[in-house]
Amino acid sequence: MVDTVLFEFLHTEMVAELWAHDPGPGVSAGLRGEEAGATKGQKMSLSVLEGMGFRVGQALGERLPREMLAFREELDVLKFLCKDLWVAVFQKQMDSLRTNHQGTYVLQDNSFPLLLPMASGLQYLEEAPKFLAFTCGLLRGALCTLGIESVVTASVAALPVCKFQVVIPKS
Amino acid sequence: MVDTVLFEFLHTEMVAELWAHDPGPGVSAGLRGEEAGATKGQKMSLSVLEGMGFRVGQALGERLPREMLAFREELDVLKFLCKDLWVAVFQKQMDSLRTNHQGTYVLQDNSFPLLLPMASGLQYLEEAPKFLAFTCGLLRGALCTLGIESVVTASVAALPVCKFQVVIPKS
Repeated sequence: MVDTVLFEFLHTEMVAELWAHDPGPGVSAGLRGEEAGATKGQKMSLSVLEGMGFRVGQALGERLPREMLAFREELDVLKFLCKDLWVAVFQKQMDSLRTNHQGTYVLQDNSFPLLLPMASGLQYLEEAPKFLAFTCGLLRGALCTLGIESVVTASVAALPVCKFQVVIPKS
Repeated sequence: MVDTVLFEFLHTEMVAELWAHDPGPGVSAGLRGEEAGATKGQKMSLSVLEGMGFRVGQALGERLPREMLAFREELDVLKFLCKDLWVAVFQKQMDSLRTNHQGTYVLQDNSFPLLLPMASGLQYLEEAPKFLAFTCGLLRGALCTLGIESVVTASVAALPVCKFQVVIPKS
C-alpha cells in the first residue's frame, strides 16, 4: 500500500530536521539557498547525512545474497548497484552507467526519486545537494561492504536528472 | 531483497544521530540511560522524533485508499492502523487491540521490530523510549489525517513487547 514511499517520506523529514537544527555553531537555521554556497553548518549537515547514508549502505550491503559478495570485477559491482540496490531502495533501475575504465564511473538517474518532489528545471537547483548527500553515502557504504573504497559525489544539471560520480582510487 | 529493512536501518541512524547531536543547550552528547530519566536535551530529541513520525504518519495517511477515509467508527480506524498501516510499515500486524470503549485504546505488539535489535529482557529497558517516539508520532499523524485528534504514548515492560496507548479526548 504505502510502504514504497515510507523511505522517501522519512528521508525528507530527516533532511528537514537536520537543516532546521543546524549543528554549526553560530549559524542560524534556515539559511537555505545562499548564493555563496554551503555555510559551515550546512556542510556539517551534509556530512552527517552522508555518514548516515554510509552506515545504511553498509548495513544493506551485509544483507546482500552471498553470491553477490563474490563479485571481483569492479564493473560488475557497479552494475549490481545500478540494478539491484537501486531497485531495492528506489523501485527503479539507474538509467545509465558510464566509465573511463580507469576507476571513474558515472551513474545517471534521469528522474531521481528524492528530487522528484521538487519542481523540474533550474529554479530550485541550489536546494538539490541536501537531497543527494544521503544517497552518496549509501553508494559509498554499499561499495565499502563489497570491499571497494571509493569517493562518491553527485551533481545535478537540471532537476530531476542526477549524476553520481564514483571514483575508485587505484591501490 | 533488502527493501523491507531500509526503513528500520534509516530509523536506527536517525535515532543515533539525534542522540549524538543533542540539541539541548548545555547538555553534552551521549547521556544514555541516565537513571534520573530523560534530560532536557533527550526530551527535545524525543519530541523531534515524535514530530518527524507525525509528519510521516500524516503523509502516509494521505496516501491511503479513499474508502479508508470513509471510516466513521473510531474502532474501525484503530483496527485499520493495527492491520494495514502496521503491515505497510513493519510487515506484520499488531498483536492485540483493547479498548475501554471510552476513547482509550491499547495496541500491543509482542515483537516490535524497532526494538528487536536490542537484547530481550530488562537490561536495556531504559534505552527503549528513543526507539518508540517516532512510531508514537506515526500513529498520531495517521489518526490526524483520518480526522481524529489523539495523544499517543508507548510503554515497554519487557523487550521486545511494546504497548501503544491511544487516548482520544471526547469533544
